[in-house]
Amino acid sequence: MNTNESTLSIVALGGVNEIGKNMYVLRYADDIIVIDCGSKFPDESLLGIDLIIPDISYLLENRDKIRALIVTHGHEDHIGGIPYILKQLNMPIYGTRLTLGLIEVKLQEHNLLGITDLFTINAESTLEFGNIEVSFFRTNHSIPDCVGVVFSTPEGTVVHTGDFKFDLTPVNDEYPDLHRMADIGSNGVLALLSESTNAERPGFTPSEQLVGENIEEAFIRAKKKIFISTFASNVHRLQQVIDAARKTNRKLALLGRSMVNVVSIAHELGYLKIPDTMLIEPSDVKAYEPHRIVVLCTGSQGEPMAALSRLASSDHRQLEVLAGDTVILASTPIPGNERNVARIVDNLFQLKAKVIYGSASITGMHVSGHASQEELKLMLSLMKPKYFIPIHGEFRMLHQHRLLAESVGVDQNNIFIVNNGDVVDITNQEAIQRRRITTGNTLVDGLGIGDVGTIVLRDRKLLSEDGILIVVVTLSKMEGNILSGPDVISRGFVYVRESEALLNEVRQITVQTIHKLHEKKNITQWDFFKQMIKESVGNYLFTHTKRRPIILPIIIQV
Amino acid sequence: MNTNESTLSIVALGGVNEIGKNMYVLRYADDIIVIDCGSKFPDESLLGIDLIIPDISYLLENRDKIRALIVTHGHEDHIGGIPYILKQLNMPIYGTRLTLGLIEVKLQEHNLLGITDLFTINAESTLEFGNIEVSFFRTNHSIPDCVGVVFSTPEGTVVHTGDFKFDLTPVNDEYPDLHRMADIGSNGVLALLSESTNAERPGFTPSEQLVGENIEEAFIRAKKKIFISTFASNVHRLQQVIDAARKTNRKLALLGRSMVNVVSIAHELGYLKIPDTMLIEPSDVKAYEPHRIVVLCTGSQGEPMAALSRLASSDHRQLEVLAGDTVILASTPIPGNERNVARIVDNLFQLKAKVIYGSASITGMHVSGHASQEELKLMLSLMKPKYFIPIHGEFRMLHQHRLLAESVGVDQNNIFIVNNGDVVDITNQEAIQRRRITTGNTLVDGLGIGDVGTIVLRDRKLLSEDGILIVVVTLSKMEGNILSGPDVISRGFVYVRESEALLNEVRQITVQTIHKLHEKKNITQWDFFKQMIKESVGNYLFTHTKRRPIILPIIIQV
Repeated sequence: MNTNESTLSIVALGGVNEIGKNMYVLRYADDIIVIDCGSKFPDESLLGIDLIIPDISYLLENRDKIRALIVTHGHEDHIGGIPYILKQLNMPIYGTRLTLGLIEVKLQEHNLLGITDLFTINAESTLEFGNIEVSFFRTNHSIPDCVGVVFSTPEGTVVHTGDFKFDLTPVNDEYPDLHRMADIGSNGVLALLSESTNAERPGFTPSEQLVGENIEEAFIRAKKKIFISTFASNVHRLQQVIDAARKTNRKLALLGRSMVNVVSIAHELGYLKIPDTMLIEPSDVKAYEPHRIVVLCTGSQGEPMAALSRLASSDHRQLEVLAGDTVILASTPIPGNERNVARIVDNLFQLKAKVIYGSASITGMHVSGHASQEELKLMLSLMKPKYFIPIHGEFRMLHQHRLLAESVGVDQNNIFIVNNGDVVDITNQEAIQRRRITTGNTLVDGLGIGDVGTIVLRDRKLLSEDGILIVVVTLSKMEGNILSGPDVISRGFVYVRESEALLNEVRQITVQTIHKLHEKKNITQWDFFKQMIKESVGNYLFTHTKRRPIILPIIIQV
Repeated sequence: MNTNESTLSIVALGGVNEIGKNMYVLRYADDIIVIDCGSKFPDESLLGIDLIIPDISYLLENRDKIRALIVTHGHEDHIGGIPYILKQLNMPIYGTRLTLGLIEVKLQEHNLLGITDLFTINAESTLEFGNIEVSFFRTNHSIPDCVGVVFSTPEGTVVHTGDFKFDLTPVNDEYPDLHRMADIGSNGVLALLSESTNAERPGFTPSEQLVGENIEEAFIRAKKKIFISTFASNVHRLQQVIDAARKTNRKLALLGRSMVNVVSIAHELGYLKIPDTMLIEPSDVKAYEPHRIVVLCTGSQGEPMAALSRLASSDHRQLEVLAGDTVILASTPIPGNERNVARIVDNLFQLKAKVIYGSASITGMHVSGHASQEELKLMLSLMKPKYFIPIHGEFRMLHQHRLLAESVGVDQNNIFIVNNGDVVDITNQEAIQRRRITTGNTLVDGLGIGDVGTIVLRDRKLLSEDGILIVVVTLSKMEGNILSGPDVISRGFVYVRESEALLNEVRQITVQTIHKLHEKKNITQWDFFKQMIKESVGNYLFTHTKRRPIILPIIIQV
């Protein structure tokens, strides 16, 4: 993004054509502002990888120009990359109180507290970074304290919505600031970046209060213990669980590290109101009658190590689900998690629990935190942008969002569907997208950040499918005759004790190959030699097993 | 299942507490009848496994008593195990014409044609095997020519529904035979085995005709080429595609091996009516104007190698999707396939196609082939069984099916929710479930059937996560000093060229470990020696990388 002085440039380092690792960059002249710094979970093709974060090469090259990291809210896909990226690039961080509270927990876990300055903002804050003035507007979402961001630059105003929905009856009176949004629109918006998660979904996302009503009803009906699982970060929903527990005179126990963490921070910062004597320790649950108990727990996505999964398989060290208990899954499985969630429901039924699960449209136990089509049109109508860049979604979501923008009057030539790294440059009110900067996925594996590449992943894939077969042989330096071996070792291919005949044949083939090469005096061309063993053994195994393990010949000369 | 003469025994070898690999066994005295012989796909934990089939140890032990394999219909989860199991156990196979046609294709692919006798039955057939008389009743499902099976034994009548729905306006006038079912019920049913796939779904599954109407409407609206993808085996839906093509004056091309196979068999056997000049070769599509073309293709589940996926990524050697073409996904993604399907839709939108996708309740392009709750209650009400065994479903489906049975008056003590291998014995009209036979999953990997066990799978899992690190060292037999190495080889752990320092350290640690052992004269205790190297290298790597590759020390003595 080397541009002339008066150009406004916008680029995503992550978050378009994907759900996750949101990171957007706005640059005017020598001032760069970063918006969000998320992570995402790898799909099943990235074997052994723990996490994906954005490739920040561009930011590293321009580190002297970076003024701030502004964080719109505290979800993982907006804050999860922070501890990894701060190690390479120090930036002051701006966020609301709850957002910074959640970031601090992360920094603490990585022993990074104090590594950078954290500045608390609220929806009324204004900040100045060189030529860029930054202000905010309140939105709602499935976590409290979310903001959209307004960038006023000499070139014009850019709005980034963050994640949002229009919940007009929000749980904790955090109304979306419609009047402020209308004002911003009236003053003219050059470019809008708006999130697209639910752009495929018709209608208007229901209010979170709907879930509260259904939770309360289920609590009234439940005769014994209640277990309820939801995303820990959904503080509004946690409040509604607390309210229902109060109304039905139940004590509340918390299970799961992230649940305990979030409740503690949200309570401390005043986002959760918990009656004084309501919280009890899981170990004290036994002291109460079953109908006096609610257990709020993690694991609603079927995570195998989380509380709900352990409870379902009677594997929790403190609590157990008994016949007649009620278990509520206040969530919808994210694609890919269905099987794990189904397994939990199976197990809970085995325990003779009553389980409220399945499609949220039937149970009423979940609503989305994201704007559906009518709300996206409402945002576009309020902001009336000249240029529109749909963000935060896979391609089909961005595509549907484009159609929505066209339907409310945005000129189709002024809509930019970009890839991560595509730069939109606006000069004299004219936008073009012609250049790209380097970006992509940085893979985190254990302590390694970016050290696992395609070769390692390809090997893991091959290993996972058919394992490895190692052929070891020792030759004498002088005559090239076999001093020991060939020995054959297998991992993940066949179980050696049950495959003697097959592995004997591999030894034979290796010996024959060595003899053949010997005759041709090719014994010292090591690469050729290894290649010949690989091929002859590989062909034999494929013919006889239809499997292709990695074949690794090790030849030692002494 | 060693029982006395007058006991009727029922057991599942596959199909309960799972979706897939259906196989049920009915035994009276010395006569055994097997119902269905399915396969299922492995989940992601079974790395490298191609297919799962039932463990048939019980049948092998009783091979002299097996009279027949009766197949209810031609879906993979009912016929997919046949070629693998016939290799070990020859049984005559009974099925309807289409079912046998599809089985023959399988046998041909495995070079097994003629290995056993195939007997064609229809809904009016009756068979006798010793003391057991077998008859059938017509049902509907998402493949034609399905039957339920009635077993009349001296102990009483057992009914197995096969897969079914009640489509009262079926596409090809294959009405479910309500009157026959009512008759069977009137004559008394001792035990009913009924499928549970949709036992969680309220209401009545819509008729397949609904899909036909929506296909026709979409065809009328389409301006250019139409691509439509569905399960090849859904012959009713294929017929509706053909009918819509005829009405809109379009030619039909077929893409994908299974589509070509099924259309050819179904056409030949008279299950598909195709106008004489309608079918064209994919290579001839170019010769027609776009609005004259329908392409019917495989890949509706997002299978990466299937036609639709190739078309979406512009990677098909004969055809391409162009701007303005219509693509219809007449299917619902099976859990686990959502991401692959979503990727295809993304790519099709990139090509500027119109795509009809997403929830079938919105598009109307798919209906289930399985009975919903009201239909399951209808079957139970028609059959009025004394004993009920819900089959064909995961535990929560069986559980919901049990509740439905109770709601229509089946005594709750007469409902058996079983595991694969649990035997229900009925003697003098009294059923008990107390004994088990051996069964389970037989894993197919390449040509190997059952030769991949837990150790190999555990290794594949470890290899897939952090790879393998091999440490090779040659020692002299006499003094035990190092003659060559230690050499370090890695696959799937780190990329060697970028990890010199780390691997050098591994070499150092190996040398130190050898020296230490040398001093203590432990050098010849090989297992201990290897264990020490594993531990010292493993600890070092975990501390420095937080990864745990398999560590494989190879020590050669010469």
